[in-house]
Amino acid sequence: MTDAADLTARLIRCPSVTPEEAGALVLLGDLLADAGFEVHRVDRNGTPNLFARWGARGARTFGFNGHTDVVPPGPPGSWTHPPFSGHVEDGIIWGRGATDMKSGVAAFVAAAIDFVRETPPDGAVILTITGDEEGPSRDGTTAILDWMEAQGERMDVCIVGEPSNPEVMGEMMKIGRRGSATFTVTAKGVQGHAAYPHKAKNPLHALTAYLNDLIAAPLDAGTDHFDPTGLQITTIDCGNPASNVIPEMARAVVNIRFNDLHTGATLEADLTARAARIAQATGVALTISADVSGEAFLTQPGPFVDLVRSVVTQETNRQPVLSTTGGTSDARFVKNHCPVVEFGLVGAYMHQVDERVPVAQVQQLKTIYQRILEKYFE
Amino acid sequence: MTDAADLTARLIRCPSVTPEEAGALVLLGDLLADAGFEVHRVDRNGTPNLFARWGARGARTFGFNGHTDVVPPGPPGSWTHPPFSGHVEDGIIWGRGATDMKSGVAAFVAAAIDFVRETPPDGAVILTITGDEEGPSRDGTTAILDWMEAQGERMDVCIVGEPSNPEVMGEMMKIGRRGSATFTVTAKGVQGHAAYPHKAKNPLHALTAYLNDLIAAPLDAGTDHFDPTGLQITTIDCGNPASNVIPEMARAVVNIRFNDLHTGATLEADLTARAARIAQATGVALTISADVSGEAFLTQPGPFVDLVRSVVTQETNRQPVLSTTGGTSDARFVKNHCPVVEFGLVGAYMHQVDERVPVAQVQQLKTIYQRILEKYFE
Ligand SMILES: [Zn+2]
Ligand SMILES: [Zn+2]
Repeated sequence: MTDAADLTARLIRCPSVTPEEAGALVLLGDLLADAGFEVHRVDRNGTPNLFARWGARGARTFGFNGHTDVVPPGPPGSWTHPPFSGHVEDGIIWGRGATDMKSGVAAFVAAAIDFVRETPPDGAVILTITGDEEGPSRDGTTAILDWMEAQGERMDVCIVGEPSNPEVMGEMMKIGRRGSATFTVTAKGVQGHAAYPHKAKNPLHALTAYLNDLIAAPLDAGTDHFDPTGLQITTIDCGNPASNVIPEMARAVVNIRFNDLHTGATLEADLTARAARIAQATGVALTISADVSGEAFLTQPGPFVDLVRSVVTQETNRQPVLSTTGGTSDARFVKNHCPVVEFGLVGAYMHQVDERVPVAQVQQLKTIYQRILEKYFE
Repeated sequence: MTDAADLTARLIRCPSVTPEEAGALVLLGDLLADAGFEVHRVDRNGTPNLFARWGARGARTFGFNGHTDVVPPGPPGSWTHPPFSGHVEDGIIWGRGATDMKSGVAAFVAAAIDFVRETPPDGAVILTITGDEEGPSRDGTTAILDWMEAQGERMDVCIVGEPSNPEVMGEMMKIGRRGSATFTVTAKGVQGHAAYPHKAKNPLHALTAYLNDLIAAPLDAGTDHFDPTGLQITTIDCGNPASNVIPEMARAVVNIRFNDLHTGATLEADLTARAARIAQATGVALTISADVSGEAFLTQPGPFVDLVRSVVTQETNRQPVLSTTGGTSDARFVKNHCPVVEFGLVGAYMHQVDERVPVAQVQQLKTIYQRILEKYFE
């Protein structure tokens, strides 16, 4: 039996702060090759990536996705045990990546190895592991998926092994994610003296009216699987030092986390139409520029979601909520390839000093992944 | 007869850019002393000021106020005639201060000299002329008024000779001025991630709601002699570079030009009460700090205003509007001493390149001032 907790500790000992490979993917590649997987390094532009398949290409295929890179540990002196020690004590594994997500990778690698050895399926298992999820993510999971497409490799379904539970194992799995877009609003009026506003057009008044319109009412009330769309003004800047002068220009940035009622394009159209109304009323030109970093997506509840959910319930005695909350993950890339859900550990210590994980939790996650594989190929 | 136009040109030839005296007050002091005025230089902290009285201290006294300092001329090469040339051609006097307000000072000095010589009154005439109206104005007219109070000197009424007519002589006199106050609004919330707004308190949302409340409706509809109070947001600043971060702090500056329905203190109370309501609703602390640069004031229409108005009408065939518009002037200091009105030239070229004034306009203004003196002491 492959020990997922021990593998977690060994991975932590590779100081694979993005973009360093630091031996983490080499360790996994060797282990998987030994277990009969076909292994390829799929590096792109210096970013290290690993692809591994057991079984025949083109067979019915279950996939996993994860990353071995980690965020910087901060001051090592702040840690109870050195951040890359992989120290194990009293049933706890310590170190950077203990929850996000060397443990998750170790759990699905161990589960896949044991599954294909103990109950070889009539199908294939593909593991996609990147060394850049925490960084720019331009040549990480997308590079693996691009390579797979070129090679005719395909996953039918995929689990991303990111921490998905806020506090206890089994309470939450993720079946999608809100989209995220950033809009920069530039207001250009006519400069003038504060005592003679009729000779000027105050861009700050137009911008205030515009932003107030955006925040006055929620953009929606949420949908079956999504929270209401959230809008946050993240900055407003003008930089006018003279309190008796009406400035010419001002700028605001608005970040929107949106559900499946919207796309980046529909939001841009909405914000632009609202801007046109304010511009019409005030004579101040309002320009909107959009930067859509990810569209909303949802893996519709169905057989795959039910499968993961039933195994999680069986192993944890909890019915996981089907959530779409949280920040971005590589699921936003995988969803273009095949149905994807995220299930992993408790994310409590992610990106923090003294990141750590209980040995038992890693072993439980490995068991869950192995049961999912068994049930999928039953 | 004293030639006000010639005196204007001679004053322009003194390059008295604030805080330089440049011979302007010396010229006037000598002229007034020769005409039998008691003359005192009332400099304070290096700022040159002139006080002159004809007649007995304590008698019924008519006053004038003005300034000989001017704003910088800008690039001399941009001028048709050099800015301190006092060049006279085709009935036009050219140079910095031609309208603001060496001409006004020349007109009331010439009027006072000719008046006391031609029709010596049973009373007194006081002239208060400062060398710092365009600058900080801390040791200018206020210094003269402070000195007068200490000396037991008193004007019963006063005309400030600033340009008061927008386009033609006689169309406008000023009987008061709106107040001006600047309010800095600081919003302090709780920083957080844009994807998890429930864990943060966005100061920009509170500030936007607050400012929108301020601009959504006029503060008043104006009064008998005042325009509606005007409010302008002059800057909003946050400086948050991260579009996925809810910032902790933001700041806005609001300038209010207010009529006699308000004082600096009532506005501060109003803005603070509105801030408290938004703070209550949002959990964001909104702090208001006030800087009141001048209270609104009004010389109530009555015998003095009627006197000036009737002479202006008689000499220009126009009924001057009793206005309270425009930027600040030293009338804001004089009004604490005695009833004050402003009447002077057409202000068209104030502070501009090629500032200039028709000879005939200066002479007309001198005549108006002399008729006012005659009528006052009738
Ligand atoms: Zn992660
Ligand atoms: Zn002036």
